[in-house]
Amino acid sequence: MIPDKRLLEEAFARLKGHIHHTPVLRSRQIDELCGAQLYFKCENFQQMGAFKMRGALNAILSLSDKERSKGVVTHSSGNFAQAVALAASKTNTAAHIVMPENAPSVKVAAVRGYGGVIYQSGNSPSDREEMARQVMAKTGASFIHPSNQLEVILGNSTASIELLDSHPDLEIIVAPVGGGGLIAGTALAAKYFSQDCQVFGAEPTGAGDAYMSIREGRIVPSVSPDTICDGLRTQLGDINFPIIQSEVTDILLVEDRVTIEALKLLLTRMKIVTEPSAAITLGAILSHKAVFAGKKVGIIISGGNVELDRILCQGKAD
Amino acid sequence: MIPDKRLLEEAFARLKGHIHHTPVLRSRQIDELCGAQLYFKCENFQQMGAFKMRGALNAILSLSDKERSKGVVTHSSGNFAQAVALAASKTNTAAHIVMPENAPSVKVAAVRGYGGVIYQSGNSPSDREEMARQVMAKTGASFIHPSNQLEVILGNSTASIELLDSHPDLEIIVAPVGGGGLIAGTALAAKYFSQDCQVFGAEPTGAGDAYMSIREGRIVPSVSPDTICDGLRTQLGDINFPIIQSEVTDILLVEDRVTIEALKLLLTRMKIVTEPSAAITLGAILSHKAVFAGKKVGIIISGGNVELDRILCQGKAD
Repeated sequence: MIPDKRLLEEAFARLKGHIHHTPVLRSRQIDELCGAQLYFKCENFQQMGAFKMRGALNAILSLSDKERSKGVVTHSSGNFAQAVALAASKTNTAAHIVMPENAPSVKVAAVRGYGGVIYQSGNSPSDREEMARQVMAKTGASFIHPSNQLEVILGNSTASIELLDSHPDLEIIVAPVGGGGLIAGTALAAKYFSQDCQVFGAEPTGAGDAYMSIREGRIVPSVSPDTICDGLRTQLGDINFPIIQSEVTDILLVEDRVTIEALKLLLTRMKIVTEPSAAITLGAILSHKAVFAGKKVGIIISGGNVELDRILCQGKAD
Repeated sequence: MIPDKRLLEEAFARLKGHIHHTPVLRSRQIDELCGAQLYFKCENFQQMGAFKMRGALNAILSLSDKERSKGVVTHSSGNFAQAVALAASKTNTAAHIVMPENAPSVKVAAVRGYGGVIYQSGNSPSDREEMARQVMAKTGASFIHPSNQLEVILGNSTASIELLDSHPDLEIIVAPVGGGGLIAGTALAAKYFSQDCQVFGAEPTGAGDAYMSIREGRIVPSVSPDTICDGLRTQLGDINFPIIQSEVTDILLVEDRVTIEALKLLLTRMKIVTEPSAAITLGAILSHKAVFAGKKVGIIISGGNVELDRILCQGKAD
C-alpha cells in the first residue's frame, strides 16, 4: 500500500525546526566528469551525521504521549542506534538500544553519550530481536525499526522534499539502497513533490539483494553481503518493498572500487566527508553515465560517519 | 587609509551571482567542546576551493574594458594562481601566471586547466617579481597582488558580508592571517556590517609576523616561517597593515599540533575538508577558550585544498 501525500506533508511539518535543513552543494568539476548537472543533498551534515535522524525523530514524535512516556527500543550496531538515542534525548524519551557484542566500541560510546540505555545481545539477528522483545515486554517501550516502518520511511522522505522544494526541476534523484527505508522515502517524495522525477537506487555489487528482489518480484534475502558499504548490507522489508517496486525506476549496481573513487572525488573536489554507503550514489553515476547524460540529478549524500584513515591510508607508507 | 563602506557595497554587488554564496554550518559537539556558539562560513566550498576567488574576481571586474583586454598577471605558487586563472577564464580575460620552478606540479596543472598562461621563474620572491614585471612590460597586463591590493581586500570582505547578513548578531569573527588580505577584508566587513563585532586573526606560532607587527607598530618581515599552514607563510603589506592595525582586535597564535587537531575535528564532527591554513581558526578557539567563552563566533573556513592523506596517514601502517 502506497502512503498518501498527506502523510508526507505531516511528517515534513512535524520535523521542521527539529532537524537541520541541510545544504545542497554543487561542483563544476564533478559535473564535467559525469556529463550531468548534479545537486548533492548533504545529509552528512545532518544531526549525528546521517539522514537516519529524520526517520528516528519522526517515529518518536508520531507516538502518543502515553506511548512516549514508556520509551522506545531499537536494535542496531550502527547509525540508527545513535539516531534513536539522540532523537529520544531531544524529546525527553527513554531510549533502550540493543547492540550486538561485536558493535564497534566507538558507536557504543556515542549511543551512551546521547543518553541511550544499552542492552548487549548476541551477534545474530535473532539474538538482537529476542533481546528487543524482552525489553519491550519489560518496559512497554515502542519498537522502532531502522528501515521497515512507515514513520521511519516518512521521516526519511523529508530530505528529498527539501531538495525538490529548492530544485523542483530535478529529473532524477539517486539514493543508496540498504534496508530500503531511504530509497522508499525518496521515491514517495518524488512521486508527490515533483512533476516527473525518476528515482534510482544505488546498491553495491557485493550486496545486490534489492537489485535481485526487483527482478524476481519478491524480497531476496541478503546472504553473506561483501562490500565496504557497511550501511548497505541489510535487506528489504515488507513495508518498504512494495513502495520500491511501485515507485523506483531501477536499482543500479556499483563496484566498491568505484565507490571509493567517488568518495575520494567528494573529498578532493567537493571538500566533504562521506561514508562509502553515501558515496555509492556518485559511484552509480560514474558507472552508468548513459542513464544520467545531460540530466539534472539530485543525489542523497546519506551520511558521513566514516573512519577516513582506513580508506585513505591503505597501502601508504609514512 | 580605511576604505569607506560604499566600496564594500560595490564589491558585494559586483560579485553577486558570479561566486558561490557559501553555506554556514554548525556543530553541537564542537560548540560544547569550545564553550561557544560557532558559525562556520564554508569558503572551502567556494569555486576553486578557497575564498581567493572573491578577491581575484573583484580585481578583474574592477578593471576598465581596455585594461581587461590586455589581460592580468600575478605571481603565486598556490591558491591565488588558480583563483586568477579561473576568474580570468570566467571573464574572457587573458591570465599570465608567474609560478616558481618549485611549485607543485598539481597546482601548475590546475592553473593550466583553467586556461592560464604559465611563466616559470626562479624560486626567490625577487625572481618572481622580476618575471612579473617583464610580462607586464611585454603585454600591458594589469598586476594583481594576492593580498596587498585594495580590490582584492574588498573582494575578500564579501565572505563576511554574507556571513553577517545571515547572522547579524555575531560578537566575534575569526579569520586566518597570512598575507593579510583576508583578515583586512573581514575587519572592514565587521566595521560596516555589524553593530559591534570584534575580529581576531589566527596565526601559526611558527609564522607569527603579524602578531609581532601589531605589537611593534610596523610590518615585521616573515623570516624562515615554519608551519604546516602553507598559505600563511607570507607577510603583511602596506595596504592591508593599516586596516589590520586599526580594525583588528588582536592576533592569536596557534601551535600546529592544535591546528591539526582542529582539522581532524572538522573532518570527523562536521564532515568537511579544510586545509591547515583554514582549520587554524578553530585551533585559535581551542587554544584561547577564555576569549570566546559563551560568545556567538563566526569562523572563516578559508579553503579546503589539502592533500589529506599526508596529514591522516602519518605514522600509520597499512
